[in-house]
Amino acid sequence: MTLLAAPAWSTSRWFNTPEGLTLDALRGRVVMLHAFQMLCPGCVSHGIPQAQRVASQFADAPVTVVGLHTVFEHHDVMGPDALAVFLHEYRVRFPVAVDQPGSGGDPLPVTMRAYGMRGTPTVVLIDAVGRVRQQAFGAYDDLKLGCDLGTLVAEALTARERPSETTRLSVSP
Amino acid sequence: MTLLAAPAWSTSRWFNTPEGLTLDALRGRVVMLHAFQMLCPGCVSHGIPQAQRVASQFADAPVTVVGLHTVFEHHDVMGPDALAVFLHEYRVRFPVAVDQPGSGGDPLPVTMRAYGMRGTPTVVLIDAVGRVRQQAFGAYDDLKLGCDLGTLVAEALTARERPSETTRLSVSP
Amino acid sequence: MTLLAAPAWSTSRWFNTPEGLTLDALRGRVVMLHAFQMLCPGCVSHGIPQAQRVASQFADAPVTVVGLHTVFEHHDVMGPDALAVFLHEYRVRFPVAVDQPGSGGDPLPVTMRAYGMRGTPTVVLIDAVGRVRQQAFGAYDDLKLGCDLGTLVAEALTARERPSETTRLSVSP
Amino acid sequence: MTLLAAPAWSTSRWFNTPEGLTLDALRGRVVMLHAFQMLCPGCVSHGIPQAQRVASQFADAPVTVVGLHTVFEHHDVMGPDALAVFLHEYRVRFPVAVDQPGSGGDPLPVTMRAYGMRGTPTVVLIDAVGRVRQQAFGAYDDLKLGCDLGTLVAEALTARERPSETTRLSVSP
Repeated sequence: MTLLAAPAWSTSRWFNTPEGLTLDALRGRVVMLHAFQMLCPGCVSHGIPQAQRVASQFADAPVTVVGLHTVFEHHDVMGPDALAVFLHEYRVRFPVAVDQPGSGGDPLPVTMRAYGMRGTPTVVLIDAVGRVRQQAFGAYDDLKLGCDLGTLVAEALTARERPSETTRLSVSP
Repeated sequence: MTLLAAPAWSTSRWFNTPEGLTLDALRGRVVMLHAFQMLCPGCVSHGIPQAQRVASQFADAPVTVVGLHTVFEHHDVMGPDALAVFLHEYRVRFPVAVDQPGSGGDPLPVTMRAYGMRGTPTVVLIDAVGRVRQQAFGAYDDLKLGCDLGTLVAEALTARERPSETTRLSVSP
Repeated sequence: MTLLAAPAWSTSRWFNTPEGLTLDALRGRVVMLHAFQMLCPGCVSHGIPQAQRVASQFADAPVTVVGLHTVFEHHDVMGPDALAVFLHEYRVRFPVAVDQPGSGGDPLPVTMRAYGMRGTPTVVLIDAVGRVRQQAFGAYDDLKLGCDLGTLVAEALTARERPSETTRLSVSP
Repeated sequence: MTLLAAPAWSTSRWFNTPEGLTLDALRGRVVMLHAFQMLCPGCVSHGIPQAQRVASQFADAPVTVVGLHTVFEHHDVMGPDALAVFLHEYRVRFPVAVDQPGSGGDPLPVTMRAYGMRGTPTVVLIDAVGRVRQQAFGAYDDLKLGCDLGTLVAEALTARERPSETTRLSVSP
């Protein structure tokens, strides 16, 4: 199985981070990219809270949660100012990028199109060497997401250390 | 870090399996041991449904879910006949053992005491080489449990195959 | 519309009350009769917690919650001793009666048959003059149950006081 | 107990209704006024879904659910165009009014101030003769809300009909 590198992110603005993040700079870490729209009910009720739980519970693991505001409809009422209020009111603390608006009248933003996303919410899991390992549209079960993250973290740590000894489980209840 | 082997299971009866299971026979697989009592509210509302979800979602992975009925109180109303009805009514399909009653008047059953469990529900995760890697009393978050299982499965597959290539995520949404 | 009087209760034992209750003695109060079996999953996950919420939230209203253990299957493992443990473990505080076992080999207990219940859980609402006003098998939505109780309480208070003034809402958030 | 009439509503725009509603025109019906802001998390997760359940379950009862968008912060990103998208995406079908913006620099809109609301979400229950009978800020339990609505509906029907016979429960499971 040969996997291509995950597409680079094209963004117009970042929140909750002093400077923008790139996949290259995150090499060595597992990345959970959470694509959402602030007025998408499934994102608000399921996706955002799940991303917040991951950011909190994997705080000590080599996992980075990144939000991506992929507005593909109702652009005029989901601009950056509205997003800023949304992130404040919902207490979203992880870094969030605004996806670069499509050019030439394309309603889909650039990164959303590059990843071939079908809608929001979409979660993309990118491994420590920068490849897309999972792309899930809609509800993503906690057990499954936890398992996928655990698998990728184990891979990342194995690659780093080639340990002969037993690794400690990265998360404990 | 050096870990001892998980204690063997002492059981008086099995349900949902033609013959009893042993840790030795499960070598090579990750084991989720779910210790419960049929009249323990936390077991019924949280532990049992979670174990059922794991059994279902990890059906294709090298993971075995085993229930252990560790009766340490109200022994007279939680005997094997009552347990059989409980398993039927709650549609529990994975193998379930009755923990061997303590001898000499010990209210704690044998396996429960051997693992040093503090009560029910308790989840014990045993890795593919037979060692206890996690023991959690009370609520065990789905994200954390999924991550821990994913980590142990990744270890098990690495040990089996020493693959040079990328493994497929074992669970997909 | 003419309604018959609710059938009297035939019981073999009571818990959580110094002496047994009767519909006659409860005249003037709205009665929520909750028929359940201790090993019925829908009763345990939905019915019992709902009855507990009603007992708590309507503590100051003329509403009495009564449990009725209507065992119609697996009689040998749901006897009074097992029920006593169940009520203790699940912290059920409202009065609970054991329905009188059917005679002549009838698997259905006497009160269950008298009310024509189809299974468990079943909620029966009896008004302040002793008539069945609602009988619901299965899940009973909180909003609907609240409305039905509110209606019957309003009726009861109107009959009592024939007030010319506005009544205070009996429950406030 | 003497109650004043509920303040009239001052609104700048209506959605989901051919023409604006007034309390006078709703005389004879129980009104559930749900004050919210589209970017208020408690409104989105709790208040709006609850108002939708009431609108659905009390469709045949003399109950009218009315939403009131009481923007008191972040006015620039919660204007009527954004609200229109919100109502569409969340499938809100009941009538919704935009509260009249405060004058003279008042951040609180007019109706919100007239009712003395403390924030969002707030539910106001107005009886069939136009008086405020309940005003609840924050989470409003389904059982309690159902009971309060049932009480007011019973009052309304009693006043209408002065029936000597038993009324049918307005909602059945």
